[in-house]
Amino acid sequence: MKNRAIVLLSGGLDSTTCLGHAIKSGFDPVCLSFSYGQLHTGEIQAAKEIAAFFNVKDHIIIELPKAVFGSSALTGNGVIPMDREDIDEKGVPSTYVPARNTIFLSYALAYCESLDIRDIFIGVSSVDYSGYPDCRPQFIEAFENLANNATKIALEGGKINIHAPLLHLTKGKTIKLGISCGVDYSLTHTCYSPDENMLACGRCDSCVLRRKGFEEAGVADPTKYQEKK
Amino acid sequence: MKNRAIVLLSGGLDSTTCLGHAIKSGFDPVCLSFSYGQLHTGEIQAAKEIAAFFNVKDHIIIELPKAVFGSSALTGNGVIPMDREDIDEKGVPSTYVPARNTIFLSYALAYCESLDIRDIFIGVSSVDYSGYPDCRPQFIEAFENLANNATKIALEGGKINIHAPLLHLTKGKTIKLGISCGVDYSLTHTCYSPDENMLACGRCDSCVLRRKGFEEAGVADPTKYQEKK
Repeated sequence: MKNRAIVLLSGGLDSTTCLGHAIKSGFDPVCLSFSYGQLHTGEIQAAKEIAAFFNVKDHIIIELPKAVFGSSALTGNGVIPMDREDIDEKGVPSTYVPARNTIFLSYALAYCESLDIRDIFIGVSSVDYSGYPDCRPQFIEAFENLANNATKIALEGGKINIHAPLLHLTKGKTIKLGISCGVDYSLTHTCYSPDENMLACGRCDSCVLRRKGFEEAGVADPTKYQEKK
Repeated sequence: MKNRAIVLLSGGLDSTTCLGHAIKSGFDPVCLSFSYGQLHTGEIQAAKEIAAFFNVKDHIIIELPKAVFGSSALTGNGVIPMDREDIDEKGVPSTYVPARNTIFLSYALAYCESLDIRDIFIGVSSVDYSGYPDCRPQFIEAFENLANNATKIALEGGKINIHAPLLHLTKGKTIKLGISCGVDYSLTHTCYSPDENMLACGRCDSCVLRRKGFEEAGVADPTKYQEKK
């Protein structure tokens, strides 16, 4: 029987690659998605389709209290412009959501305890979005250390592993990895400002990075973009 | 102007002592309470009254998704008996809620980021309930280390402090500390099995420990107990 693993699945390019990689590595995935009033709620729908594509048996969707993630371009009313790399003086993008990955991994840890699972996969990369504090190697290390001091599993001699296979990969290398794992990128959703049909804008940071990634990987970009006006 | 601090407030004896201590230490508290389908939801009402007693300006109550905290005598249907110290073979009580303090502190961290706060108070003790993995000194250290690797505050040179002033205190010493900070323990709620009027059972682990604490402290026990049948 395969070992189960919690896989954080947003429905974006990175987390989907991570899911493909977890499956290829021999894990039976339990996917965890979060709904938190993000502007791109289309991601949840994408996450469902991706989980179905990979025949994932367990897909848990958690609705987070809306008030938590305070000021961020990703959870606000869209007033903060997102069509350029909007970085503060210390290098943190305006799209940073306070403590998001810490909260996500904490829920994953609760499910590890409840379901007796030892492995968590998260699709963060420190290469392309190094401005996010919770996408850095030292964050992943610190959370793994926490997990192994916070849990009944650890107290009973078990070890919890936080896998971040994209940590040091460029977007292009991520896409190459995903292709080798059978990912269908047409199912993934990345754009910060999609239209009502979930077509990508092609202009936001996320779209620009994604498009560049397909170029770097030498792979045709399957993203459906809005028609240019 | 006083520095603000996030104080986790369950409405129980420990977290209320922690709040009194934070105020006496010169902090302006922002209280954070969580509703998660615990059997003792009366605690939320107690938390509100305690916050009012201390003239707390900001009291945030977060409703957590009910499904998260899987198997625990504190979140279940009450079938697991709680009138004795029910400990598994490795020493973890049945009342342990998976990753609870990790999730609570993660939300506190999000509010630190949103509100630009550097201090978090949590009323855990490793003395009386050492069976909980997330009440131990190494858990607090690991979370503080995480906080200082996970946040924009840390990235910008700030330091986040996790204060656990009760970590090494017995229940009796905790009560003495609280009395010196002006805590009114008649407002606090501890019992795992209160009746419909929120009167304490006097028999569950939590009641027994609390009662012993008042004896140890040499303080009259203000708890309202159910009449003996």
